[in-house]
Amino acid sequence: MHSLYLLAIVAEAMSGALMGMRRGMDRFGLCLVGTVTALGGGTVRDVLLGHYPLAWISHPDYVFITIEAAAVAAAGAKWLRNWQRLFVTVDALGLIAFTVIGCDVAAALNVSPAIVVLAGAITGVCGGMLRDLLCNQMPLVLCKELYASIALGAGALYVALQAWGIAAGPASVVVLVVGFAVRMLAVRFHWQLKVLSAADSGGAS
Amino acid sequence: MHSLYLLAIVAEAMSGALMGMRRGMDRFGLCLVGTVTALGGGTVRDVLLGHYPLAWISHPDYVFITIEAAAVAAAGAKWLRNWQRLFVTVDALGLIAFTVIGCDVAAALNVSPAIVVLAGAITGVCGGMLRDLLCNQMPLVLCKELYASIALGAGALYVALQAWGIAAGPASVVVLVVGFAVRMLAVRFHWQLKVLSAADSGGAS
Amino acid sequence: MHSLYLLAIVAEAMSGALMGMRRGMDRFGLCLVGTVTALGGGTVRDVLLGHYPLAWISHPDYVFITIEAAAVAAAGAKWLRNWQRLFVTVDALGLIAFTVIGCDVAAALNVSPAIVVLAGAITGVCGGMLRDLLCNQMPLVLCKELYASIALGAGALYVALQAWGIAAGPASVVVLVVGFAVRMLAVRFHWQLKVLSAADSGGAS
Repeated sequence: MHSLYLLAIVAEAMSGALMGMRRGMDRFGLCLVGTVTALGGGTVRDVLLGHYPLAWISHPDYVFITIEAAAVAAAGAKWLRNWQRLFVTVDALGLIAFTVIGCDVAAALNVSPAIVVLAGAITGVCGGMLRDLLCNQMPLVLCKELYASIALGAGALYVALQAWGIAAGPASVVVLVVGFAVRMLAVRFHWQLKVLSAADSGGAS
Repeated sequence: MHSLYLLAIVAEAMSGALMGMRRGMDRFGLCLVGTVTALGGGTVRDVLLGHYPLAWISHPDYVFITIEAAAVAAAGAKWLRNWQRLFVTVDALGLIAFTVIGCDVAAALNVSPAIVVLAGAITGVCGGMLRDLLCNQMPLVLCKELYASIALGAGALYVALQAWGIAAGPASVVVLVVGFAVRMLAVRFHWQLKVLSAADSGGAS
Repeated sequence: MHSLYLLAIVAEAMSGALMGMRRGMDRFGLCLVGTVTALGGGTVRDVLLGHYPLAWISHPDYVFITIEAAAVAAAGAKWLRNWQRLFVTVDALGLIAFTVIGCDVAAALNVSPAIVVLAGAITGVCGGMLRDLLCNQMPLVLCKELYASIALGAGALYVALQAWGIAAGPASVVVLVVGFAVRMLAVRFHWQLKVLSAADSGGAS
């Protein structure tokens, strides 16, 4: 699980750096956006749960890893465009790994199961939301594809499996396999939630 | 006060969902924006005050209520456009209720009166600011109408009444009545703070 | 150092207010953006470090100072445009002062040296980033000029000097002088990090 986490933060840092690049950021900006994308989800979760110290503050090497990954992505951007499929795959793995890790952190704090699921989804999704805010875009996760819903579903499955007496180890393997499969199918077949048209919207604010 | 709080988070969740709808979000995005709008103000206040656990973490049913409210608002958007007046009324009640609740939370932590007033205003105003950030708009509260100023005024009045020896119960009733009345008058007569024209602005950054 | 801190928050509050003005905010918005610009960096640092209570919560007079500064800047915007050079100078001093103060706060919490440097840079840079988010702009610091890099460099120098046995007092004087000089040279000669062109960017997200 730990090596999966490292793989996930590397992938997220690279995705953040590439997005920043398209928005005209300098090298510092790329590294910062990459780091925020990779570590932001866990940071938001821990701040909301009051769970200190934050992971990257006790393990500063995580920050170095994400900065390196962002710098490598920026340097190799020309080649990475041919690897989009690999990125989507690693990102899907990362989403589920982040979610499972987020659930574990919250569960250790004795909060209710609903909050455990939410904490997992926040870990999976908030890094990308912060990346989009820094890039001055509306967060993609709010309007595109089955992404956050899969994080919520994976978290719920993980909590349910444990409630049914399955140990954390096997439960996380099951969730990883199922969640990853659903996410890849969603990408392949462009599954998405219905976007309600602007014409449907009311006038209240 | 508690039922007023529930009414307020329902109204805020609906307003967030309707705004998200106009920005083309999917069902998940609507529910998230609605929840952030409703619970964001209290969350920002509690994180700034270091007041853990957050309300919605000890009471996850608040999250379910706001998600339901957002989903209902999205489903009934066509009808809700005729209810704009009701929304503005409930939102005004919610603003003052949030402010009073925020003041109570801060006062229990023995901070200075100025911080109590600020905490009240943050509770009333930050949910809407987070909604606007997620929708990639400049926060409305920074440029339109007497809204935040009314929250600050209501907080100051509440603190002043208590300093003059009035108990929290009657003081909050007075603040609710006065604050609500001022807010409705501000809406009715389009009161707003002077917006300084761009031509007035200097060149420093 | 304390009077330098006060000078820095005044300058930052003024810069925030002037930016808000160009975006059409009302008087309340200007004061809020000014305050967030001035106090936001330290707030983000303290929330990430779990260092409570926040400075402005134990010293609410900081909030009053920044509100006053923002109001004065808004009132005198016409005249301030001729003072741009002064602003840039005070802002450069503020950047380094914030960074040194941020390092001191983190060092007192016994975190690793890398986190001390990061905490310093976060203090120096995050206020401006929050200002840009509230103004619905992509944070300038991500794409323009040697700014954040100077904060990181100043923090690293400060930590290195102390590791070499130099006391905090003389070390901060050295960092202030060197950091300020580098920042002013960067402004004067338009030094900046290479911005990678959009054409270089890959296709992954």
